[in-house]
Parts: sequence; structure tokens; C-alpha cells
Amino acid sequence: MKLKNPHTLKEIASLINCEFVGDENHSITGLNEIHMVEAGDIVFVDHPKYYDKALHSKATTILINVKVECLAGKGLLISDDPFRDYNKLVRHFYPLTYSLQPKSDTAKVGENTVIMPGVYLGNNVTVGNNCVLHPNVVIYDDCHIGNNVIIHANTVIGADAFYYKKRADKFDKMISSGSVRIEDNVEIGAMCTIDKGVSGETIIGTGTKLDNQVHIGHDTQIGKMCLMAAQVAVAGVVKIGDGVTIWGQAGVRSDVVLGNGAVLLAQSGLGEDIAPGKTYFGSPAGEARGKMKEVAALKMLPDLLAKLRE
Amino acid sequence: MKLKNPHTLKEIASLINCEFVGDENHSITGLNEIHMVEAGDIVFVDHPKYYDKALHSKATTILINVKVECLAGKGLLISDDPFRDYNKLVRHFYPLTYSLQPKSDTAKVGENTVIMPGVYLGNNVTVGNNCVLHPNVVIYDDCHIGNNVIIHANTVIGADAFYYKKRADKFDKMISSGSVRIEDNVEIGAMCTIDKGVSGETIIGTGTKLDNQVHIGHDTQIGKMCLMAAQVAVAGVVKIGDGVTIWGQAGVRSDVVLGNGAVLLAQSGLGEDIAPGKTYFGSPAGEARGKMKEVAALKMLPDLLAKLRE
Amino acid sequence: MKLKNPHTLKEIASLINCEFVGDENHSITGLNEIHMVEAGDIVFVDHPKYYDKALHSKATTILINVKVECLAGKGLLISDDPFRDYNKLVRHFYPLTYSLQPKSDTAKVGENTVIMPGVYLGNNVTVGNNCVLHPNVVIYDDCHIGNNVIIHANTVIGADAFYYKKRADKFDKMISSGSVRIEDNVEIGAMCTIDKGVSGETIIGTGTKLDNQVHIGHDTQIGKMCLMAAQVAVAGVVKIGDGVTIWGQAGVRSDVVLGNGAVLLAQSGLGEDIAPGKTYFGSPAGEARGKMKEVAALKMLPDLLAKLRE
Repeated sequence: MKLKNPHTLKEIASLINCEFVGDENHSITGLNEIHMVEAGDIVFVDHPKYYDKALHSKATTILINVKVECLAGKGLLISDDPFRDYNKLVRHFYPLTYSLQPKSDTAKVGENTVIMPGVYLGNNVTVGNNCVLHPNVVIYDDCHIGNNVIIHANTVIGADAFYYKKRADKFDKMISSGSVRIEDNVEIGAMCTIDKGVSGETIIGTGTKLDNQVHIGHDTQIGKMCLMAAQVAVAGVVKIGDGVTIWGQAGVRSDVVLGNGAVLLAQSGLGEDIAPGKTYFGSPAGEARGKMKEVAALKMLPDLLAKLRE
Repeated sequence: MKLKNPHTLKEIASLINCEFVGDENHSITGLNEIHMVEAGDIVFVDHPKYYDKALHSKATTILINVKVECLAGKGLLISDDPFRDYNKLVRHFYPLTYSLQPKSDTAKVGENTVIMPGVYLGNNVTVGNNCVLHPNVVIYDDCHIGNNVIIHANTVIGADAFYYKKRADKFDKMISSGSVRIEDNVEIGAMCTIDKGVSGETIIGTGTKLDNQVHIGHDTQIGKMCLMAAQVAVAGVVKIGDGVTIWGQAGVRSDVVLGNGAVLLAQSGLGEDIAPGKTYFGSPAGEARGKMKEVAALKMLPDLLAKLRE
Repeated sequence: MKLKNPHTLKEIASLINCEFVGDENHSITGLNEIHMVEAGDIVFVDHPKYYDKALHSKATTILINVKVECLAGKGLLISDDPFRDYNKLVRHFYPLTYSLQPKSDTAKVGENTVIMPGVYLGNNVTVGNNCVLHPNVVIYDDCHIGNNVIIHANTVIGADAFYYKKRADKFDKMISSGSVRIEDNVEIGAMCTIDKGVSGETIIGTGTKLDNQVHIGHDTQIGKMCLMAAQVAVAGVVKIGDGVTIWGQAGVRSDVVLGNGAVLLAQSGLGEDIAPGKTYFGSPAGEARGKMKEVAALKMLPDLLAKLRE
């Protein structure tokens, strides 16, 4: 999430009423999560396990719950609850508004695009040329749909990330201020859900095709010309290359990477990276040839056990 | 399902034109299924396997297809088809009405609650304060939403139970007259389905969070502060304690119990109870540590078989 | 897809500007895919592997990318790109129109049928008597709903087939010109997707009941009195007999056949036919009794390996 105008470290510290370390005029231009940060961004960290990663990330301001040395060219915001204060900043720069019209005043729709009955277009949504949005499609605020995109009925683009911080007696919700970008020539089936990024973009690359009831988590980036069959679920912060195929009802854990041309077979559950061009199968998934040998071996196991008993 | 006023055994028998056994003034105050019955309720039973359970349940009136001895303080309704006659009674006391307005006249919405375009609120629906119902959410009759609840786009709350009786040439539908209760501070993702109870309540407990495309069956009760990831399916009549976590694409069979703090890992298929604090994995699911050993052992099986062949 | 009037081989060849082989007055009455063709139909084929099957199918006109001998009573259309030209013909005879009214002028609704708010009925849709279409149900063009059918909220009937041809730099979409036929006494849960046939019909047989979030692919035919639990996914071109039961989260690959009375247990992944009356389990699925033996044997494998190591 980029700020409209740069702010100083001192200004930001006063917004959340916290101490700061560093030049009071140190410039802040955005807020982002650790896996997406760039120079100018604030990142937050509240667990010692991740202090080093945050302090040495590309982020130039760190919202942190301990006083540490400030690296050259960086600024620190010292908070007793960085999660809470990060959310405060997000809400300040990304105020909550709900458009109560089916098509918000700020939504823009391209030429020759068909918007069917019951479609909802939130604030700042853009839809390109030659698209078809079938009935009851819902596009949340700030999402962008390219050209020649088909979205089938009742699909939801841009719902919030499933991201909470556990407290003693409740879960605190991370505010989602990111968006979804659907590139050109994408087709999305009926009843899919594609969540927005927490502070960045969830991306569906050019020419990719999704079948019905596919779920794509927040900040996941899918390359060009991928195919995903019905009821596939991809968690958040997954990186999928170009030309990847995922068959029906397979699932992908957060944070993994699927190389170009990777294939994940039906009903597989992927918890690790797939190298380019490899095919995986099983739950938990492994290289398919090996897994198929396991399937064949398992068929022989009952007889083997019977023989060994003799 | 509670009746508005108590009725006598004789009155109920005449509604379904059947014999009765017991005091004609024996009082009836509700109708319920065997797993939810209380004193005052009618329960129905039509299979010898379940006669004893029904006759000795808390229900004080039993709609049954055999003449048996009537226990003290109870009443019997003797029917050649208890399922059909139970449905007749439900329809009599719970007449079929469909509100054809997006918001029924009897729906009540609390303060500071945002109802977005395309939302449908059926008869007698209540929504608390400070809620957000995103576009095209559908709430069937008689469902109750607490305070500070967020429901994402296209989610359906309160559709009928998937419950039929097989006849020779058709399935007879059990009429769903129950409801759904969503407690405070719950967040429900996009495109979830939470079915109403057959005669009681399906409950989502305080502070629980559901990701997208989650399915919860009829009469299932979920405790406080649970997490369910995308595409989880929980069948009907399941009891889930507090602080339970169910990961993506896992499924839970009807009638099982998950103790407080239980964890069900991704893509698992649970067909038995989980004790409090335990973690389960696999399809069929078992205690995770054991299942992980099976996964590791299976990897070695092809080599073992090759060696044994030598 | 049947043409409104018969056309000659010569007329069709001129529409796609291609050569033809055979009698110029050879009659063409329809277009269909290889698995559904009848006499009078055009079928297309562009891969040598399938030339023979197409040439000897019931189709009497073959749109093909090679010059071969023309069988007696048949006609050939010689194209450098049969997929492209087949789509051209489909679009010519099935022009693209989107009704922008919630209920198209050509939709017909029977007596005593309840159409709830937010429902969309496309061009030429018919809905029989005594049906209930719950809020936000979407019925695409040309689909037919029988009598006494209940469709729960947000279900989508008739979205396009997930069917593409891979080119060097894009996927070309196969135009779906088929339909869905829901027979009498069917109940469909909330948030199901039932895709239309590519050129024929997807069929849900009399008295069949679907739970929530079920996906049925294009051209799949389901018999009478089947049950499918939540989150089942059936791919395209599957044939399911009468009285078949598929439990929750199971998946069925395209092109397989499930005989009458077959049972597929929860979370199974079916890649082969099931004979009538058989029960299958597992992913990949096999006969259940054998698969359960494998599950039991696998439980003993870690101990066996430990002993063998000694």
C-alpha cells in the first residue's frame, strides 16, 4: 500500500502516539508486509524470531516492540503492540467506506464490456474492454480487471485476507488494504473466490483460466497461461509460475513456489515448492513418479503382511 | 422447534389422524430430532434399531410405527409413517412462506450495520449492531446474526438440511424448521454455506473465523474462537469445541465430536472423535504423529518390496 | 446442437471458406462433439490419434485437417484449423446475446413456482411448475428446469464448459452452445455449479438430490435418485447411473462411468469406471474392501520396518 504523499517519521509516530528512533524527517511512502516490502515502506514485526528479517528487509521503517539499534538510513517506530498500530495506520490512510450502489461512482468500465444483472462493482474498481461479468459477480474496492476477461456468475473478487492475530480472548483482524489484479484474457469460472492482498496485489496472469469454485488466497501471484480445475484451493502468498496446471480439488499451502510448467495432480496437497516442469501428486504431495510407486507398493502390502505372518 | 402454545396429545393425534397411547391431556410443547430433544418434545422413530433410544430419550411424546408400552409421564402417537406425519406436524406449525422482498418486513437490523446491495434477509431474520453484510449475502428465514459480525459476499446462511428419507421410488425431504445462530465477533468468508438446523439451531460461536467456501451442515455447533480455512466441509450434527483449528479442504463426518483445542490438518477426512488438544491427519484421519510415521514408512515401501523380491 | 434448418455441405463449406469432399447437397442438421454425435451432425477432429474414431463415428460430416478418403454417405470439410472453424460455425448458428434483465423476455416460468429476489433467468430458460428458486440463483441461457425442483441460494446453472485448446501463446475457448436439463423432483443445494454441455445437455435425473457446493462438469449425465454430498466435484462427460451415492468432497475424473447403485466414499478420487453396485474408496480410488485393507496394513508398516531393521 503506497501513501498518496510521503510522511515523516515524526508525523507517523505522532499518529500512533509512539516513540521513534532515527531522523525525524526520515521519509515514509508506504506500508507493506514483510514478503512485499520496498524502500520507503513501513514493515511491522512483533516476534523476536522475525526481528532480524524485518530490520534487514528492504523496508526503511520498522514498527517494532523492542528498542534496538537503528541501521543507517532507516527509522524505527517503538510500539508495545505493532500489529495494533500497523492496523491503525492502515485504517488512517485507507479509511473504511462501503459503496451502497451496485456500481460505485468511482468504478470505471471499458468499451464493449457486458455487466450483467446483480453485479456489484466497489469503489475504484476498473474493468477493461470486451469483458463479460456474469450475473451477481462481486468485485470489492480497488480491484482491477483487464481486457477480454470473462468472469462467471457469483464469483467474488477481492474479499479480505484470512489473516488474524490471536489474542488471549479474541482474534484481531488484519485490515486488508490491498487489491486484486486480473490481467488480460483471463477466464474465471462460476463461484470462485480471489482474495485481495493484505497490502499488495493478488495477481492472476494473462491468459490464465480458472474452472468453477476455485479459491485463491491473498497476495498469491499466478503467472501466465495457467489452468486450474474445479475446487482447487491456493492459500495466501503463493507464487505460481507460467504454464502451471493444477487439477481438481488440489490444495496449495501458503508461501510455496510452483515453477514454470509445474503440474499438481488432482486432490494433491502441496506443502513444498515444485521445481519447474515437475509433476507432483499425493497428500502430502511429492514427485508423482515416486508417489505412484508408493500407491502400487501399498496395494501389495496386505498380501506381504499375510505372508510374513505365516 | 418450540410450539407457540402447548397442545394436548389428543389434539396432535387428531392433526395427523392417528391413534395415541397415554393421557389425552398430556402436554406437548415442541418437536425435535432425537439428538436435540427435551421434555415436552415430540420425537419420531420408524426403525426398530432406534425404538429404545427414542422411547427412553428426554422426549415426552414419541411418534412411532409400532404399539409398545407407554412409559410413565409419556405419550405415544402410533402412525404407519412417522416420518411423513412428523413432516405434517412441522408444516402445520411452521407454515411455508417466502418473502419476495430483498428485506422481509419482519427482518430487524441493528445500529451501524451495513447491508450492501443484493443482500437478502428472510422472514424473522435478526442482524445485530456494527455488522457488515457484503453484497449478495443470503440469510434464510429465522436466522440470527450477532453483533460485530462480518459476512463476505455471496455467503448463504440457513439453507435447508441435506436430509431425506429413501422411499421405493423417491426421496422424501425432511422439512427444515430450525435456524442458524451466528454469535458476536464472528467473521465468515465469501461463498460459505451454513445450513439451518432441522428443528434446532446450527451455531457458530463467539469470535470464530471462517475462510472462503466453507460448508457447515445442519445442527452442527461450533465453539468460540475456532478457525476454519478455505473449503473445509463439516457435515451435520457435529460438535466442535472452543479454540479448534481445521485446515484447508479437510472434511468432518456427521455426528463426531472435536474437543477443545483440537486440530485437524489440511485435506484430512475425520470419521471419529478427536480428544481435546489432539492433532489429527489423513483420510481417514488418525492421530497426526502416527499418520506422519505411516507417510514416512510408505516412502520406504517400494524399496523394501524390491529387496524382498531379490 | 441441432440447426433450425438443414444446410448443405456446400453451404457450410462456404461459411468457413474451406474445401469439401462429397456430395455438395449432403445434408447437415447439427454440430456435436465426438462423444455425443448422431447422423446429420458435423464432428471436428484435428489430431491424427482421433481421425479414425471421428471418421467412423455416427457423425455424417467430418471437419478435419487432412485430406482422407470420404466414406459412403458422408461428407468432409477440409480445414487448416478445425477447432477454429468449428467455433465459427457454432457462433454463426448460436449468436452471442446477453439478456440484461433479471428475467429475459424469453424465459418461461410454470405455475406455483416461486422465484425469489436476485434470481437471473437467461434467454430461453424454462422453469416448470411448483419450483422454488431461492435468492440469487443464476440460470444461464437455454437451460431447462423441470417440475417440483428446489434450487437453493446462489447456485449457478449453465455456466460454460471448462474446455480450451492450447495454442503457442494462448488458450482458445471452446464455445459452449449446449444446455442443462434438470428433471422433476430434483433438489440442488446452495452454491452449486452445473455447467452446460459444449453442444449437448448436462442432465440431472429425476429425484436426484445435491448438497451444497457441488460441482458438475459439462455434458455429464446423472441418473435418477442419486445423492451427492457437499463439495463433490464431477468433471465433464461423466455418466452416472441411477441410485448412485457420492459422499462429501469426492471427485470424479472426466469420461468415467459409475454404474447403477455405485457408491463413492468421502474424499475419494475416481479415475476409472465403477461397476453397478460396487463401493469405491481412496485417492486414487479402488474397490473399498481392498482399499480398507491397505489402510489397515499401512498402520502396521512403521512397526514392520522397525522390526526388519533389527
